[in-house]
Amino acid sequence: MSALRPPFAERLGEAMERKRSRLVVGIDPVLERLPAALRALPPERALAAFAEEICDAVAEHAVAVKPQAAFFERYGARGWSAFEHAVRAAAQRGLLVIADAKRGDIGSTAAAYADAFLGDDPETCAPFIDALTVNPYLGLDALEPFAERARTGGRGLFVLARTSNPGSRDFQERSSAGEPLYLAVARAVAVWSRPWVGPSGYGPVGLVAGATFPAELPLLREAAPQAILLLPGIGAQGGRIDGVRAAFDEAGKGAVVASSREIIYAYERAAGGAAESSWQAAVRSAARATKDAIEAAL
Amino acid sequence: MSALRPPFAERLGEAMERKRSRLVVGIDPVLERLPAALRALPPERALAAFAEEICDAVAEHAVAVKPQAAFFERYGARGWSAFEHAVRAAAQRGLLVIADAKRGDIGSTAAAYADAFLGDDPETCAPFIDALTVNPYLGLDALEPFAERARTGGRGLFVLARTSNPGSRDFQERSSAGEPLYLAVARAVAVWSRPWVGPSGYGPVGLVAGATFPAELPLLREAAPQAILLLPGIGAQGGRIDGVRAAFDEAGKGAVVASSREIIYAYERAAGGAAESSWQAAVRSAARATKDAIEAAL
Repeated sequence: MSALRPPFAERLGEAMERKRSRLVVGIDPVLERLPAALRALPPERALAAFAEEICDAVAEHAVAVKPQAAFFERYGARGWSAFEHAVRAAAQRGLLVIADAKRGDIGSTAAAYADAFLGDDPETCAPFIDALTVNPYLGLDALEPFAERARTGGRGLFVLARTSNPGSRDFQERSSAGEPLYLAVARAVAVWSRPWVGPSGYGPVGLVAGATFPAELPLLREAAPQAILLLPGIGAQGGRIDGVRAAFDEAGKGAVVASSREIIYAYERAAGGAAESSWQAAVRSAARATKDAIEAAL
Repeated sequence: MSALRPPFAERLGEAMERKRSRLVVGIDPVLERLPAALRALPPERALAAFAEEICDAVAEHAVAVKPQAAFFERYGARGWSAFEHAVRAAAQRGLLVIADAKRGDIGSTAAAYADAFLGDDPETCAPFIDALTVNPYLGLDALEPFAERARTGGRGLFVLARTSNPGSRDFQERSSAGEPLYLAVARAVAVWSRPWVGPSGYGPVGLVAGATFPAELPLLREAAPQAILLLPGIGAQGGRIDGVRAAFDEAGKGAVVASSREIIYAYERAAGGAAESSWQAAVRSAARATKDAIEAAL
């Protein structure tokens, strides 16, 4: 499968063009917030069914989904089965899959994580995952096993640069020779991954850049011109859609905007409580509205 | 269960005293390296059986085991079942369990990871895990949900400060106001976790400090005097046992030394290939020898 797969950046760019969308929908399922009919199921079945319905509802409007591993791991091995189901369901619906697992380790351990998420073992869901979020704290040699899998298998990485939480200031803003850590990470990753850039001008190694810090997006764009930026933090976390324009290149490419709870729990906001039968419609409508708002902001 | 559990630092100190050991055995199972009899089993059963036999072999000499999540995740949901088996097997044998998963995320996602590894859900193995490794890149607010679980449930955290790989230089040595990032992380974590220090003088939040950088161990010990140090990197990675002395306090406490492949694959080194029936004996003997070498170095 992987030998025939074009580079992730090309596949993402093609999907953005075809769907006229720059939206990634995060799948962060919390049992207590699921529609009542699903809450009656055993946890792993509820998570799997919810994720599948979300994929159905957003497939037309989103280029990718971003299942968040933590919310599945919360239920142990049963939760992992639901994660695998979610990944396969998304791939079957033509959605790219960005596994948001923020892994990071060294040597053979990093290679084992790379196999877990970007490998080719048909007994796992890894062949259906298109990209993975990773943590840079351990250094470039620790990212190398992930990058090797990504560039040989048509997959992508998103390396955390500037995260969207307030506490990202603690270490990511720490300045050395006038440059904060998050920019140093972006620059180092850009230099290291430059040889792997494809025809679109983008390479397999992207960056995570919180939309909650819009003034920093042009700095990150400039520091890593060949990195696709994944922008979390709009909506509940306070980032504004009209703040993300600087993350895109002149052609409006090179970035995607992630939104999770504002979309997947859209039915909670329906006036007087949505009829349970229409929760999927509320999700679909929220996905379309968010996609349109992003397009309008460019 | 957790309401009755004494603080992790006290439990670890008690085990060190009772076993006269400062050894933690890492469980990093790679199928291809398992004894032949186990390699014949389906992957998840092979990993579970290997982990259980390792626990049996080292229980007398190690204070804790450190199962490495990556090597189990590699096999998806089936691998997670094996991880859960390994955790329970270790707890049943009186070993403390340090889950080496290096998790890190923000807000409710961090809370979900904390539930996954340090929670109380009896349907998962979390109640049998005593401590977890976490990544500091996202900042202190991202560590808070893990710390909350740790301090209320008698568990521990080990925050990555200085990792044992060569590439840890890339970002961890980056200096600001004369202080490298790894020391800034250690100092910030020490200040933040000071209110939770227990009767032993140590608190629930420890640090990971690679034994491959022995000259830095006294700096980390001084920067975070109430943090238990977890020291990986001896053996295969080049760290020397006689270099770790400075990580301990004057009473020889406050740190543990982790060794993985040198112990769990000790049978590979047996002259002429060990009889398969004695692989456990080779592991047991390696655990004892490593424990004794650490004690002799103090």
